[in-house]
Amino acid sequence: MCGIFGYINYLTPKSRKEILDLLVTGLKRQEYRGYDSAGVAIDTDNKDIALIKKTGKVKLLEEEINKRCAEMDMETAIDIHCGIAHTRWATHGVPSETNSHPQRSDDAHSFVVVHNGIVTNYKEVKVFLQNKGYRFESDTDTEIIAKLIHLFYIQHPTYSFRELVESVVQQLEGAFALCFKSKHFPGECVATRRGSPLLVGIKTKTRLSTDYVPILYGKEPSDSAHSEHRPHMRDIPVLPRTESTSEFQPLEDKEVEYFFASDAAAVIEHTNRVIYFEDDDVAAVKEGALSIHRLRRNMDDPHSREIHTVKMELQQIMKGNYSFFMQKEIFEQPESVINTMRGRVNFETQSIILGGIKEYIPEIKRCRRLMLIGCGTSYHSAIATRQLLEELTELPVMVELASDFLDRTTPVFRDDVCFFISQSGETADTLMALRYCKMRGALIVGITNTVGSSICRESHCGVHINAGPEIGVASTKAYTSQFIALVMFALVMSEDRISLRQRRAEIMQGLENLQEQIRAVLKLDAEVQALAKDLYQQKSLLIMGRGYNYATCLEGALKVKELTYMHSEGIMAGELKHGPLALIDDQMPVLMIVMRDPVYAKCMNALQQVTAREGRPILICEEGDNETASMAFKSLQIPKTVDCLQGILTVIPMQLLSFHLAVLRGCNVDCPRNLAKSVTVE
Amino acid sequence: MCGIFGYINYLTPKSRKEILDLLVTGLKRQEYRGYDSAGVAIDTDNKDIALIKKTGKVKLLEEEINKRCAEMDMETAIDIHCGIAHTRWATHGVPSETNSHPQRSDDAHSFVVVHNGIVTNYKEVKVFLQNKGYRFESDTDTEIIAKLIHLFYIQHPTYSFRELVESVVQQLEGAFALCFKSKHFPGECVATRRGSPLLVGIKTKTRLSTDYVPILYGKEPSDSAHSEHRPHMRDIPVLPRTESTSEFQPLEDKEVEYFFASDAAAVIEHTNRVIYFEDDDVAAVKEGALSIHRLRRNMDDPHSREIHTVKMELQQIMKGNYSFFMQKEIFEQPESVINTMRGRVNFETQSIILGGIKEYIPEIKRCRRLMLIGCGTSYHSAIATRQLLEELTELPVMVELASDFLDRTTPVFRDDVCFFISQSGETADTLMALRYCKMRGALIVGITNTVGSSICRESHCGVHINAGPEIGVASTKAYTSQFIALVMFALVMSEDRISLRQRRAEIMQGLENLQEQIRAVLKLDAEVQALAKDLYQQKSLLIMGRGYNYATCLEGALKVKELTYMHSEGIMAGELKHGPLALIDDQMPVLMIVMRDPVYAKCMNALQQVTAREGRPILICEEGDNETASMAFKSLQIPKTVDCLQGILTVIPMQLLSFHLAVLRGCNVDCPRNLAKSVTVE
Repeated sequence: MCGIFGYINYLTPKSRKEILDLLVTGLKRQEYRGYDSAGVAIDTDNKDIALIKKTGKVKLLEEEINKRCAEMDMETAIDIHCGIAHTRWATHGVPSETNSHPQRSDDAHSFVVVHNGIVTNYKEVKVFLQNKGYRFESDTDTEIIAKLIHLFYIQHPTYSFRELVESVVQQLEGAFALCFKSKHFPGECVATRRGSPLLVGIKTKTRLSTDYVPILYGKEPSDSAHSEHRPHMRDIPVLPRTESTSEFQPLEDKEVEYFFASDAAAVIEHTNRVIYFEDDDVAAVKEGALSIHRLRRNMDDPHSREIHTVKMELQQIMKGNYSFFMQKEIFEQPESVINTMRGRVNFETQSIILGGIKEYIPEIKRCRRLMLIGCGTSYHSAIATRQLLEELTELPVMVELASDFLDRTTPVFRDDVCFFISQSGETADTLMALRYCKMRGALIVGITNTVGSSICRESHCGVHINAGPEIGVASTKAYTSQFIALVMFALVMSEDRISLRQRRAEIMQGLENLQEQIRAVLKLDAEVQALAKDLYQQKSLLIMGRGYNYATCLEGALKVKELTYMHSEGIMAGELKHGPLALIDDQMPVLMIVMRDPVYAKCMNALQQVTAREGRPILICEEGDNETASMAFKSLQIPKTVDCLQGILTVIPMQLLSFHLAVLRGCNVDCPRNLAKSVTVE
Repeated sequence: MCGIFGYINYLTPKSRKEILDLLVTGLKRQEYRGYDSAGVAIDTDNKDIALIKKTGKVKLLEEEINKRCAEMDMETAIDIHCGIAHTRWATHGVPSETNSHPQRSDDAHSFVVVHNGIVTNYKEVKVFLQNKGYRFESDTDTEIIAKLIHLFYIQHPTYSFRELVESVVQQLEGAFALCFKSKHFPGECVATRRGSPLLVGIKTKTRLSTDYVPILYGKEPSDSAHSEHRPHMRDIPVLPRTESTSEFQPLEDKEVEYFFASDAAAVIEHTNRVIYFEDDDVAAVKEGALSIHRLRRNMDDPHSREIHTVKMELQQIMKGNYSFFMQKEIFEQPESVINTMRGRVNFETQSIILGGIKEYIPEIKRCRRLMLIGCGTSYHSAIATRQLLEELTELPVMVELASDFLDRTTPVFRDDVCFFISQSGETADTLMALRYCKMRGALIVGITNTVGSSICRESHCGVHINAGPEIGVASTKAYTSQFIALVMFALVMSEDRISLRQRRAEIMQGLENLQEQIRAVLKLDAEVQALAKDLYQQKSLLIMGRGYNYATCLEGALKVKELTYMHSEGIMAGELKHGPLALIDDQMPVLMIVMRDPVYAKCMNALQQVTAREGRPILICEEGDNETASMAFKSLQIPKTVDCLQGILTVIPMQLLSFHLAVLRGCNVDCPRNLAKSVTVE
C-alpha cells in the first residue's frame, strides 16, 4: 500500500539536503509496503513548493531529486520546515508521474497532499469541483482533496490550516490517511486518518515532559457523525470552531522534530516515542506544537493519546547478512517461533498461559462457535489450525475470508467468538470484519504482529505473535507464528480435559522440538534451490495435499504466485478426481505433500492417480520414508512432528522454493510487482 | 469411474455377434462415466472364455473384437450365455491392456471379474496369494480378486459360485462393485457391491409376476460385521451356508435376460425394470433365476428388494441434434430449471412445497446450523447459495468439501442439519460424509439427480433436482438445478417471515423469469465462441468475482480445467491484493464478473487494480451497463435478475466458454482426459 512520510523540523536547523535525505530514507524504510512511484514536496528558496515525483523505485526518485535540485541551495540550514513524501501504490490511474503524490491544488502549489487509501466518493466531489471551475490533471482520487482544501481556503479565509483539513475530511468517504502541506501555512503540517494507519514520531533533545497528548474536542458536538458523513456538496457546513487552549508543548526550549508515517519502521531510527492516531483524529503541527483534534466527543472517548515507546530495533528492519528481507525472515524462523512461545509455554509444567486472553477463556469456552477471519496468508494460518481447534475445543470452527465474510453479511451472534488474524493489524478487510462482528456483540480476539495496530486496539483481547517486524511483502515468519499462536490457544482451551492429556503432551513435545526441526528443514536450502532450477522456467505449478497439510498447499501456491508470477495453485488432493486431474500430464509440474499421517493412504491414492497419468510428482515426505519417496520423480525429506504441527515444517520448503524460483526468474523478492505488504484498502 | 456391464440371456437365444453388440452398447451408454480402456469376456466355441481388451475408447475395443472374432462362430444362436464387460478408469497401474478388466484367475480363465472401485487392502492379499504360488500379471488391485476366488474354488470344491464370491468379498476392504463369470459355472453370473453403484435390469417378454425379489439371509448371523471386515488371510473363515429356498422366478416359461450395470442409462433401452443393490448384497443368476443373498440379517433389514420402474427415456441419454452431450445439456437448461421447479413452485400463490422434506421443515428450523457438503461442482452450488441461506434462514451455514470434512473428522452434533449434494448420488466422499454425519445423529438431507442412488436411499429426506440424466462429464444443468433446489429450500424456510415477504417476492419473480433469461443468455453462444477464439491458445485463465458470483468463478474455472486442460483458477476478487494481483500483466487473460449488485463498487475497485496493471479484462456484466463495459477489453452483457439468482445466469457463459475452448483445442468434450462422471472411489 502507499506509504506516507512527513518531516517537520522546528528550531532544529537542517539543510535542504539533510531534509531530502530524511524524507527519502523515510520512504525507503516503507518500501516493503509495496509501491510503484514516489514523490516529495519541500519548500524552495523563493517560498514556493517544489514537487519532485518519479515512477518506479525510490532510488529513481533520489536520482531525480539530485537532478532537479542542482539549482537549489542545498547546504544552508533552515530553522523551520515541513516536507512531505509518499510512495504510491496505484489504485486509481496507472503508475505515472502525474498520478504520483503529492497531489496539488493548483499550479501555484497552494496546497499539496499525500494520501494512503481510497476515496470512494471522489467522482461526485470531482464533478462538484469541476463545476466550480477546477481543472484536473491526474486520474487519482487524491487530487480532489488538494482542490477541495483550496476551495475551502478561498471560501473561509479565516480558517486555520487544521480547520480547513477538518472541513475537507468531512466531505470524504472511504478509507484514508492524509498529510497536508501548504504555501499559505509555512512550517505547518496537518495529518489525519480514517481507516488507514498513521502515526507520528516525536524527537526532542531532552526527555518529554509528558507521556500523553491531550485531545481537543469541538466546542459543541458537530451533527455530522461518523456514520453520516454523506456529502452534500452544495451545502458545505460551517464548522464548529474549536478553541486551541492546551496544545502540546513538549519542552521549554521548543526544539523538536516530528515524523508522520504510515509505519513505525520509518521513524524508529530517529525516535522511539510514537503516537498512533485513531480514526478521525486531526493532528496539526504549528509553531513546533502538536495538537490532536476531534470534531465531537462521545461518552467514552479518552482525554488524550498516549505517547508509546516503540521497542523495535533498527537492525530488526535491516537485512543483515541476507540479500533479501524475505530470505532473512525465512531463516529467522527458528528464533521467531520461540519468541511466539516465550513466556507463554512452560514445557516443564506442560502449561500455557496466554496473558492477553486469559481472562476471557471462560467466556470463550461457553461460546456457540469460533470464527477465524483473515485475508491471504493469515487466512491460511486459520485453515492450517482449524482441525486442531475443532479437535481440542469440540466447538464448530468456521474459517472465513474477510472480504467474502463482509460481502455475505454473514449472520453473527452475541455468543460467537471471532478471531481476526493480520500480521500488520491494519488489513482493511479484516478490520472492517472486526467492526462488523463487534457491532453485533461478538467477542473479538485479535492475532497480530504489530503492537498498537488498529486490530490490536479494537479487539477485546488477543495474542501478539511476537515474530518481530516482517518486511518482506510475502509473509513467512508471521505465518508460522500465527500458526503457533492458534495452536497455543487450542491447548489453553483444552487444558482441563483429562481425555486429551496424552494428545496435549504430544503437541507440547512437538512445540519443544520445533526450533531444532525448523533448523533441520532450513538445511535443505541447497536441495530446494536445485529443485527450483528444474522448475523455474515452467508457467504453472500445482501443489497438492490434504488434511493438516492442505493449508501448506494454499500458502505455498500463494508464495509462488506472489513472488514468481508463475500460475501456481494449491489443490485439495481429495478434489483431484473432481476436476484438477485433467490438468495432469507429463508436462505439468506437480508438487505433493505426503506425510505418514491419518490421510497417508488417501494421499497415496492421489499420488497413484497422478503417476498413472504420467505425472512426475515432486514429493515432500518424511525423513526416512524411502518407500514413499521411491514413488516420486524427486523428493524432499523433512523431519516428522506431531500431525497438527507438521504444516509448520512442510511450509518452509515452500517458502524456500518460492524464494529461489523468484531469484532464478529475476523477480524482485522483497517487492513483488503489483503487491503491497499491508493491504489497508478494501 | 469404471463402468460395469454384464449380460445374461437365458432361453432367449442370441448369436455371439448380438451378445457382443449388446455388451459394447452397454459400455457405450456408460462412456460418459469416463474411462481409459475397456474389455469384454464371452464364452468361446470350445468352452473357454475369450478375453478381449483394449486401451482407449470403446470404439477401439469394437475394432479389436471384429479382428479377434474373425475365427469364432458369430452367427449361431446360443440359448444360455453370460458375458461381462467393463470400461476402466485407471487407479492402480497405468491404462494398458494387461491392466484392463476383465482380470483373470489364471491362463485357463477359470474365473474372470470386472471391478469398479478400489480394494484398499490389496497389497496384503497379494502377498498372501503370492505365498500360495500365484503369479500376478497386472498392477491392478482387481487381479487379487480373480486369484482369490480361484484359490477358494480349489479349497472348497463344493461351494456354489455365489458362495465363492461371498467368501471373497469378506476378505476385501475398500469400495467396489464386482461382476464375476466362470468357466466352471457356465451361464451363471454373480455380482455384488459395497460402496460403488450396481443395479440389474430384468427383461421378460411378459409382465413380471412380482415387484419384489426376496432377500435370502445367512442361516446364522456371520460374526464378520461390516465394520470388522479386517482380513486374517491365514485363517480363512468357513462361511455359514445359506439355504436357497426361494429364488426369483419371474415367469412360468423362464425366458429372461439380465443386465448388470453401474448405471441405469446402460439398461434403459432393453428394460425399465430395475433393482438397485444395497451394500453387501450378493446377486446370483443361475438357471435363469435371480437370487439376492446377504450374509447376516440386522433388525431393520427388509425382506426383499423392490423392482423399480425407471422413467428415463432413451432419447434423454442420446445427443439429439447436438455434437456433444455437454452442449446438449447446456442448451437444455431453460427446460431443466423448469423441471426442477415443476410441481413445487406455485407462482400465483407465491408458495413452494418441497414434498421430499416438507415434514422435516419444523425440525430443520430448530437446528443449530446447516452444513452443505459436496465435491466439485456440487460443492460450488453450495457456495453459490450460502449467502441466501444465511439471509433467509438466519442460521449459521457451513459449506464443506466432503473429502476435507472427513479428513478433519469435523465435529457434528445431533442438532445439525447436513445437506449432501451429488448429481449421481454415488460420489464416494460425499456418501462417506453422509454416513459419518448420520452416525452422529444429524438430520441428513440429500440433494441428488438420481432416484435410487445411495445418497437418495440413505438420506432422511431430500430434494430430487429432476434435471434429467446428465451424461457430459462436466456438470452443467445439474449445477443450475442444484442451485435452484437450494434456493427453493431457502424460500421454504422463510415462508413464515413477514419481514422477508418483499425479498421472497423478488426471488419468486426471478425464478419465474429464469427460463426466458437463460434463453437470452444462450443466444450469446456465438459471442462466447468468438471470445473462445481469442483465448484458446492461452495456457492460463483467471476468473474473478465476489459476492453472489464468486461461485461462478470457481465453477467456471473448474469447467475450463476439466475440459480444456488450461490452468484456470477462480479467484475471490477481494483477495486480489493479497497475492493474485502479482499474476496480472498485459499477457495474463482475466475474466471478471461485475454485476450491479451490492459488491459492484468493490468489483470496480478490483477492475481498476487490474487495468492499472495493464491487464486486459474480459467482463461479464449487465445488459445495458455500457459504463462498466467501457472499462473492459471485451465484454458480454447478460440479463439482470435478483442478486441471489444472478449466479445461474453468469455461469452459463462460463459453461459455453469452456465448451468452445475445448472444441477449439481439440479436446474430447464429453470425456475429458483422466476424469470420470461419477467419482465412486475416495
